Amino acid sequence: MEQTSASENTKEIIKELLSREDYSVLKAALVDLHAADIAEIISRLDREERKKIFDLLQTEKAALVTAELSSSVLKEVFEDLDQKQIVDIVQNMDSDDAADVIGELDVETAEKILSAMPWEETREVRTLLGHNEESAGGIMAVEVVTVSDNQTAASALDALRKKSKEVDDVYNIYVVDSQGVLKGLVALKDLVLADPNDKICDIMDKEFFSVHPEMDQEEVANYFHKYDLVAAPVVNEKGQLVGRITVDDVLDVVEEEASEDIALMAGITDENIVEGSVFKLSMGRLPWLIVAFFGEMVSATVMHHFSASIKQVVMSAFFIPLIMAMGGNTGIQSATDVIRGLATGDFYLKDTGKRLLKELSIAMINGVIIAILLIAVSYFWMDNVKFGLILGIAMLAVLFNAAFIGTIVPFFLKSVKVDPAISTGPFITTSNDVLGLLVYFSLITFFAKWL
Amino acid sequence: MEQTSASENTKEIIKELLSREDYSVLKAALVDLHAADIAEIISRLDREERKKIFDLLQTEKAALVTAELSSSVLKEVFEDLDQKQIVDIVQNMDSDDAADVIGELDVETAEKILSAMPWEETREVRTLLGHNEESAGGIMAVEVVTVSDNQTAASALDALRKKSKEVDDVYNIYVVDSQGVLKGLVALKDLVLADPNDKICDIMDKEFFSVHPEMDQEEVANYFHKYDLVAAPVVNEKGQLVGRITVDDVLDVVEEEASEDIALMAGITDENIVEGSVFKLSMGRLPWLIVAFFGEMVSATVMHHFSASIKQVVMSAFFIPLIMAMGGNTGIQSATDVIRGLATGDFYLKDTGKRLLKELSIAMINGVIIAILLIAVSYFWMDNVKFGLILGIAMLAVLFNAAFIGTIVPFFLKSVKVDPAISTGPFITTSNDVLGLLVYFSLITFFAKWL
Repeated sequence: MEQTSASENTKEIIKELLSREDYSVLKAALVDLHAADIAEIISRLDREERKKIFDLLQTEKAALVTAELSSSVLKEVFEDLDQKQIVDIVQNMDSDDAADVIGELDVETAEKILSAMPWEETREVRTLLGHNEESAGGIMAVEVVTVSDNQTAASALDALRKKSKEVDDVYNIYVVDSQGVLKGLVALKDLVLADPNDKICDIMDKEFFSVHPEMDQEEVANYFHKYDLVAAPVVNEKGQLVGRITVDDVLDVVEEEASEDIALMAGITDENIVEGSVFKLSMGRLPWLIVAFFGEMVSATVMHHFSASIKQVVMSAFFIPLIMAMGGNTGIQSATDVIRGLATGDFYLKDTGKRLLKELSIAMINGVIIAILLIAVSYFWMDNVKFGLILGIAMLAVLFNAAFIGTIVPFFLKSVKVDPAISTGPFITTSNDVLGLLVYFSLITFFAKWL
Repeated sequence: MEQTSASENTKEIIKELLSREDYSVLKAALVDLHAADIAEIISRLDREERKKIFDLLQTEKAALVTAELSSSVLKEVFEDLDQKQIVDIVQNMDSDDAADVIGELDVETAEKILSAMPWEETREVRTLLGHNEESAGGIMAVEVVTVSDNQTAASALDALRKKSKEVDDVYNIYVVDSQGVLKGLVALKDLVLADPNDKICDIMDKEFFSVHPEMDQEEVANYFHKYDLVAAPVVNEKGQLVGRITVDDVLDVVEEEASEDIALMAGITDENIVEGSVFKLSMGRLPWLIVAFFGEMVSATVMHHFSASIKQVVMSAFFIPLIMAMGGNTGIQSATDVIRGLATGDFYLKDTGKRLLKELSIAMINGVIIAILLIAVSYFWMDNVKFGLILGIAMLAVLFNAAFIGTIVPFFLKSVKVDPAISTGPFITTSNDVLGLLVYFSLITFFAKWL
């Protein structure tokens, strides 16, 4: 039978069964559902309902469901389960998922759960927790199938068979020496096609891609993407195999990094932009608004300085929104280019000068076109070409300035190791506003007599 | 030996060899480089140098390199190669990559190349070209390993061995009946661990995830992401296996969709935001600027209507940037939430009402905080609480309006099947500006006597 994503219908049925308290049917229904679907359903239930679902799940399924939960839902669920349940669930998880889950908890709870587990089982999780969450070490799993290079293909298959329960997704068998140093790997396909008596050293790939535990997860993702990898070994500075990363984790990273960039670009500090309470979401957005608030207070001060000109040439005020919108859009366009190029690895820091030239040229072309439009509008609408000319010059200056700031700021942030995505938030727009308005009103004041 | 990404050093060496015209050494150096690295180096060379590199590559390597090129580089390279070279390259590619490459060419060139290839070989490519580029059919490959359910594991291994040259990444063997209807699949790991005499029907998974050829690629990506898939069969409405999608293609889709969303959100229409000529990039950005231009002309008209108030209360002009920035940021924050939620499958259209309520509540909380700040600033800076009160009321109204538009527009666009990411471009900001300024100056005019 073809398996498809749980339909809306299924979700309604689960809710119905919950409200009818028909737990025996519900339990049976849950067995047939994919863990990812159960996680999705759970995230839309209230806390009491969530607890009930968890009580009905078998431990193994509960572990799979837990691995799929978002951090906010996870925290609530764990607050409502008793410690025995949590320990059982964590023990049934893969090391990387277990470390992720434990890492989400506060230190005290985490320690309580870890100390309730057998030492041997927590060792791997503790090791993983020692790595930066957003590094290769933080996303790797430690369960690997290893063989030595003098084994035969047949005995490698035996090794795989023995570990097959523990390791779910096997793409490669890793060949290590007695010190645990990675010598090569055998792709599953090559192992299948080998003669049982073939020596591992004859069928293994001695050239392979590997990553270091400290490599940033975004870099890991670019690496997988560039070389079309499905799995990669993680190797420490001594060349020892410490774990492996699989592509499903990389897919999570790509989605996560894209969401993070998009959120930062829109001026939302909390990486969790979709869920959470109204108050939490407000607080995630407020910092950006406050930055913009004080930035635009500077704009107000600048304009206060030009009060006389505004009074004299009141129509200069009408075009403030235009100046701001054009500068803002141009700055964001340039910055987005740079941010995306840096994130996907298409740009390097040393490209700064080349990119700046390109962005300024683009701004120049668009600036001239907009300036011509402005002059035309001034002529036909206001019958005042002179004012259009001043507006046009101001527009060119504003666009040029916006492209400059929009290009320089993300490159600068990258060079000081701050996420460049932050720059398109209010920073670029606000500084564009202040500088743009300064240029605009200076020109207006200078040419006021002429108007 | 551990293989790592080609260093900057390697790239310099290639360039150096090119300039020295030391082609024999260059040819040897290229053999050792990964296709993805050569593609990266090529994208940074000029056309003449690119052609030289291509002339030195063996056909198989050239095919791999071509599959990695971005569309703009690809077009230039193909313009400079002769037809025989192109045909050789395309013939050496996987069907999905070949279809992607052919799809990038103009119809005439594409037809010329296809007609120079043997009919049998173009059939697959032609079939793939018939699918929407952004659908499951457009990203699938047609090379699959199939067996029937009464075969044994041993004979399935033989089938795999026979196809192993043609199919690079094998994760599953597909079980089909005489009509080509997909009955199940055998994961490579299970095939490896099976007894050679096991019947396929006993070891195959009868429950599997599959996608339809028309499924949107973004949906396919969400599907892979949700269920941690590495490969999925593509099955038509009759249940017949027509191809398979692998996770490396999905990774491309996720990066592509994220870049596309980010570009659209920043007001860049061209999906290729990183490369291309200055003129092409300008034209990709100009449409948004023109939309904003005419939008802000409406703002100018609105303000023209309020000339008298501006003259009378000149300080009302000072806060135009503040009103615009706050409305703009709030609108973009709300819209980004909705856009991202819709893209990752976390929100559904039916959530519109619930989400709207949430976004309006967030705007209310932040609006009250900003309003209080404004009143404080008016008191301490301008010693004018009344004006602060009016500004505060205007701010609340503007934020409320911005959150409303920012939430409604992306949901609306999604419901009419337009990419919601387009909405945070100038549309939301500009309409916020017009409405925000209308509200602001109406309040100023109404309370002018009181000030």
